[in-house]
Amino acid sequence: MKKTLQNHHRASFSRNFSFKARGFDIQAPVFMPVGTRASVKGLGPDQVRSTGAQIVLGNTYHLHLHPGEDVVAAGGGLAEFTNWHGPMLTDSGGFQVFSLAGINKIADEGVWFTNPANGDEIFLSPEKSIQIQHQLGADIIMAFDDVVDLSAAGRSRTQEAFERTQLWLDRSIAEHRRLSKLSQAPPLLFGIVQGGLDKKLRLKSLEQVQASAVDGIAIGGLSVGETRDEMHEMLSFLAPCYDQSRPRYLMGVGHPVDLRFGIEQGIDMFDCVLPTRNARHGTGWISRSAFGDDSTDAKAAIFEYDVQINFKAERFKLDQSVIEPGCDCWTCMNGYTRSYIRHLLKVGEALGGQLLSIHNLRYLQRICEEYRG
Amino acid sequence: MKKTLQNHHRASFSRNFSFKARGFDIQAPVFMPVGTRASVKGLGPDQVRSTGAQIVLGNTYHLHLHPGEDVVAAGGGLAEFTNWHGPMLTDSGGFQVFSLAGINKIADEGVWFTNPANGDEIFLSPEKSIQIQHQLGADIIMAFDDVVDLSAAGRSRTQEAFERTQLWLDRSIAEHRRLSKLSQAPPLLFGIVQGGLDKKLRLKSLEQVQASAVDGIAIGGLSVGETRDEMHEMLSFLAPCYDQSRPRYLMGVGHPVDLRFGIEQGIDMFDCVLPTRNARHGTGWISRSAFGDDSTDAKAAIFEYDVQINFKAERFKLDQSVIEPGCDCWTCMNGYTRSYIRHLLKVGEALGGQLLSIHNLRYLQRICEEYRG
Repeated sequence: MKKTLQNHHRASFSRNFSFKARGFDIQAPVFMPVGTRASVKGLGPDQVRSTGAQIVLGNTYHLHLHPGEDVVAAGGGLAEFTNWHGPMLTDSGGFQVFSLAGINKIADEGVWFTNPANGDEIFLSPEKSIQIQHQLGADIIMAFDDVVDLSAAGRSRTQEAFERTQLWLDRSIAEHRRLSKLSQAPPLLFGIVQGGLDKKLRLKSLEQVQASAVDGIAIGGLSVGETRDEMHEMLSFLAPCYDQSRPRYLMGVGHPVDLRFGIEQGIDMFDCVLPTRNARHGTGWISRSAFGDDSTDAKAAIFEYDVQINFKAERFKLDQSVIEPGCDCWTCMNGYTRSYIRHLLKVGEALGGQLLSIHNLRYLQRICEEYRG
Repeated sequence: MKKTLQNHHRASFSRNFSFKARGFDIQAPVFMPVGTRASVKGLGPDQVRSTGAQIVLGNTYHLHLHPGEDVVAAGGGLAEFTNWHGPMLTDSGGFQVFSLAGINKIADEGVWFTNPANGDEIFLSPEKSIQIQHQLGADIIMAFDDVVDLSAAGRSRTQEAFERTQLWLDRSIAEHRRLSKLSQAPPLLFGIVQGGLDKKLRLKSLEQVQASAVDGIAIGGLSVGETRDEMHEMLSFLAPCYDQSRPRYLMGVGHPVDLRFGIEQGIDMFDCVLPTRNARHGTGWISRSAFGDDSTDAKAAIFEYDVQINFKAERFKLDQSVIEPGCDCWTCMNGYTRSYIRHLLKVGEALGGQLLSIHNLRYLQRICEEYRG
């Protein structure tokens, strides 16, 4: 029953989109594991590839702080430096600057913030971000945006940030064009739609980004603390407004429920630390069909097709089944039991998080693959 | 020159010993990676196997505390529970009880100590240790011993501990015999030679162990804080006294210099957390020939054949070579650069320690393989 329903949804909503990023073909929908500091936490690139990942994300903010774009460039660019040898996307650093750093000053020129590691003041601007991303050597790079959070202080900056994001988009494009002329194989540049939960602003932002010479459309500023319903409503609102030719990327989203919803609202690309962060804390996803009628786990979060489970739970102590019976991830295929993984998680052995990360990443890739048909 | 000298040493001192542990052939000399809590820290069993490891060690003390021998047994024993599917050795718990636990009481009957995780009082005795090890399902198990440290309090117990270790050896053997009659494929039992740095006591202990019905001879209580010269002197002293038929196991030793020295003094087996613990802190080993005439690293510790290097050092920032040029470990064969590994280690990404652990483990296995000829 479930299966039929799911297939019906897929048939209706899959747009079977694909695009080229430099030499690489990207098949959408696609989930991008996050390698914040040039590593998908705890996993080697071969393990990441085993999950079906096509493209990995790196964070410009973190990589600029360490090891620095000069070090990455000397290593042949991010894909070679990390031994991934596949397509990569870098974000612009905007989100991290505004969420992680101690900001000293924001102006149209750019942002001055403090390096938390050593107290140095660092300056980031659209030009600087695009320069760093070109030097990091990603295949897809992102425009630099002014991001507001959902706090009162953040909300009071909404209009200002919206206008500055438009200004910075144009300057990001100009800098990207300048650098692309010097490059044999320039990356794609994506623009970022902002506007918080304000539909008017969102639409205006989307129109502005789509009117620009960018290669893809990213939806930023969602999954930042709003409710799931609020996010889904915004995705439904924007769905009819995208043009057909360019990839659409929903930034920072990675819960199976939101992935399914996003794909059905025409989103092509996703990224999130959730599958790996959850795994390190013992939380994994399995399908409803693998979960069955198990009602003994009061703490499992049960969704329409997906169940989120804490694998540290006592009831897995002697459970000799794999994380998700029938799963084709490396961890499940090799017979690692819930009992063993629970033990590793409970005593803090890193292998537990690694094994569960592989499973969670594969779980999201499989959702994407199912929608690809 | 060095190479010739090294080969000469090897030819003189290799005893080319091998033995069977249940169904498994063990080729000596052999280094056993330590999987304290049912995991060689940060590595999957496939990665451990890639280093050339034949046999992995598990710690009875840690496994008794979590997940408990009943959980391991329910998972098919340690080799199946951990997905290693190869030979395993468990220690008796003696060393950990005396070095890690808060001891409440020591008597001939056994040891009462406090579980640091929850404050519960736990009792361990020769009988109990052997029962746990049989239940864990290792292929080689160890007699339970009374271990003294090098503190004044420890030294004052030397004679008492020596006598109790003899008493406990006989009881370990008796319990092992009783349980082996109930088993289709009983493990090997090794006895442990103690006696600190007192040659008379050591010799008496060795004679006592060799006179017992044990399958192997372990040297315990070394590499616990004494100088390298003191340890080497004791190994040289004991070297002529071993019988030829049984494997000899030097417990807790894993520095390349001590491995080489031990092998040349007739030792067949080693275990140590050093290769993986060092790796997590950024320290790796490479051969003198790979190090070459590099005198720019003032902090490298240079030994006759081996160099110990801190790979977090600034000078590796842009170094595009692998950890050890010419090395056949998975990490070096796959081209992971010093520059990348340094970055990972500096920012605390677990992958750095994992990649270096693979190298360090392979480095020790290669020493063993070279001596095997």
